[in-house]
Amino acid sequence: MKADLWITEQQTEDMLISFRIKEKLHEEKTDFQHLSVVDTYTYGRMLFLDHCVMTSIKEEFVYHEMITLVALNTHPNPEHVLVIGGGDGGAIREIVKHPKVKTATLVEIDGRVVENSKKYLPEIGAAFDHPKVTVLIDDGIKHIQEHKDEYDVIIIDSTDPVGQAARLFSAEFYQNVYEALREDGIMVAQTESPFLEKDKQLITRIHQDLKKLFPLVKLYLAYIPVYPTGMWSFTLASKKHDPLQVKPEDIVAINTRYYNQDIHFSSFVLPNFVADLLK
Amino acid sequence: MKADLWITEQQTEDMLISFRIKEKLHEEKTDFQHLSVVDTYTYGRMLFLDHCVMTSIKEEFVYHEMITLVALNTHPNPEHVLVIGGGDGGAIREIVKHPKVKTATLVEIDGRVVENSKKYLPEIGAAFDHPKVTVLIDDGIKHIQEHKDEYDVIIIDSTDPVGQAARLFSAEFYQNVYEALREDGIMVAQTESPFLEKDKQLITRIHQDLKKLFPLVKLYLAYIPVYPTGMWSFTLASKKHDPLQVKPEDIVAINTRYYNQDIHFSSFVLPNFVADLLK
Repeated sequence: MKADLWITEQQTEDMLISFRIKEKLHEEKTDFQHLSVVDTYTYGRMLFLDHCVMTSIKEEFVYHEMITLVALNTHPNPEHVLVIGGGDGGAIREIVKHPKVKTATLVEIDGRVVENSKKYLPEIGAAFDHPKVTVLIDDGIKHIQEHKDEYDVIIIDSTDPVGQAARLFSAEFYQNVYEALREDGIMVAQTESPFLEKDKQLITRIHQDLKKLFPLVKLYLAYIPVYPTGMWSFTLASKKHDPLQVKPEDIVAINTRYYNQDIHFSSFVLPNFVADLLK
Repeated sequence: MKADLWITEQQTEDMLISFRIKEKLHEEKTDFQHLSVVDTYTYGRMLFLDHCVMTSIKEEFVYHEMITLVALNTHPNPEHVLVIGGGDGGAIREIVKHPKVKTATLVEIDGRVVENSKKYLPEIGAAFDHPKVTVLIDDGIKHIQEHKDEYDVIIIDSTDPVGQAARLFSAEFYQNVYEALREDGIMVAQTESPFLEKDKQLITRIHQDLKKLFPLVKLYLAYIPVYPTGMWSFTLASKKHDPLQVKPEDIVAINTRYYNQDIHFSSFVLPNFVADLLK
């Protein structure tokens, strides 16, 4: 018989989601946040930061493929790739699979996320020791400020825009990201759910901020069942290359479970109410 | 200050979702099911049947546009359209907007759903009195058995495949739907979430059953935030017309908030793990 044990996330002020758990595997207070790992019936092992679901074994492939592979396949030569945040390692795991990537740098502020991912989520934290990878436990904002004209692709794999992470959604930060990118660089950020009122304003504001810097800014979508509403947006900003001008036959998708040649393009097709946020 | 009042749906044995409510508007036990209407902060007024979310004022447009407009725009002449279930009236509201539709017949087994939708969800139950519409409070299975070679499009807008509604997912029912359709008819059914283990088997089985009857069977997807996982599937089965062969310029989308010319095609693009269910 299944135990009547549940973990509940307050997704918004007005919405809760609860998952029945098999067992709690770990809980700690790091220097930056509350961290827990639980094993759930629906999604397997799940990582929570500050009581919010970050990722889970059974559906993490959607987020990690979609936050990385769209940009990697848009850039014709993504040799040097940076991930800000993403301490679980899922984004890095996808990045090192791409044959053109030479270096993948992960800058995560909280080393305990990396350590716990290695221990409890080894399927996700699978590439920390890959020869292409450098892991830096450091402030991503500082790193971006100190590196100019260096990266082909920068992935902003942040938590929600509250507390520390709010700085990763600011116009000032985007200016520094722009400068850290090479002349034909591309950035991607996770930008919350178009169904939620508070996120709608955020998506519009980010789009406007990035349009002031980059000639090409586009929103794309993916189904992420553990995030509020299940509809998640990513904003891609590019100095030169257009994701919709990629040749389908050039798209690289190695052992993917979500992303493929057709998804690359269809993820940019927006329902009317989402397109309206960008007008 | 907001009240600490919540309504909780047990989405699966292992998952709960809760919405903070402003007030409970109505609750009754009909001859067929438990029915309640609550006003929530996130999604406005919501209809629950047997304690499961059916629809809500703020996001119902996704489900109702997507269950109807894909088929209506695939059929070159959708004159006679039938909805089985769908007592809230949202599907019928979308159908009567299409200029080629001459008759829209709704067969709902539970008249109390229609009455309560008129009263509490008038934005959804907006077309019951439209001149094109006939509302029949009757068993949809009986109706289908008694009508042969009559409909251009049949929409199966059912609840989950448990209890009474399970019959609406059977091979025998699909055979009767096939016979109720005219020679170039199309059916669409809501077919649950590809992320859930129990639903995966259902999607595969339905696809196989329909392939035995119809030359063309395709799955498409939409973001429905109030349904489990937020990723919802619809199965379209067609005797002749292919939704992917429609001319974009022929697509009719009147005052839609989700569906548009591009969504018509992109909703058929499947992530790998969903495509695998149909192999």
